[in-house]
Amino acid sequence: MIANTPKLPYYAVIFSSIKTNESADYSEMADLMVQLAQQQDGFLGIESARNELGITVSYWRDLDSIKKWKENTDHSIARERGRKEWYQTFKTRIALVERDYSFEK
Amino acid sequence: MIANTPKLPYYAVIFSSIKTNESADYSEMADLMVQLAQQQDGFLGIESARNELGITVSYWRDLDSIKKWKENTDHSIARERGRKEWYQTFKTRIALVERDYSFEK
Repeated sequence: MIANTPKLPYYAVIFSSIKTNESADYSEMADLMVQLAQQQDGFLGIESARNELGITVSYWRDLDSIKKWKENTDHSIARERGRKEWYQTFKTRIALVERDYSFEK
Repeated sequence: MIANTPKLPYYAVIFSSIKTNESADYSEMADLMVQLAQQQDGFLGIESARNELGITVSYWRDLDSIKKWKENTDHSIARERGRKEWYQTFKTRIALVERDYSFEK
């Protein structure tokens, strides 16, 4: 679903990835990381889609909440397994959302 | 593929959408818009994935190139059809990328 983010400004972490053929535990870990992220102070929402390329955008109140989530122990362990097993390549971009607008039928 | 964006800073336009059941001409128009965007001054790259939710992130040199692409006539016509036919809901976020880092095996 489209994240129901609050008033500007806020931050987006755009995580673009291509997986390896290794998928053991991947779905469970991905689901667990979403659950964990949702419990973090400053978490505002998350959006995800995957075909060959996967894009996950998580939204955060500020750089400090992003930093704390990055330093979370379980998240660090998951990222390490990601580098070793699940991802062939990825790119992370941290961006300050300056404008947003939406449309709904 | 993951966009090979240049050195910071640059802008990201995060377009998150949920489609209607109407898909006539959608793929053709989406492909055409990617081709057209690639020809615009200031275009840096694009990434796209769709399941129920679709996420397209396009990257741009600055706000001015984003504005000019928004004002492009063919793009405006496509957006109008998007609102009328293809999208049930969407959200666009314009964000200044402040940090990026990548991993490759």
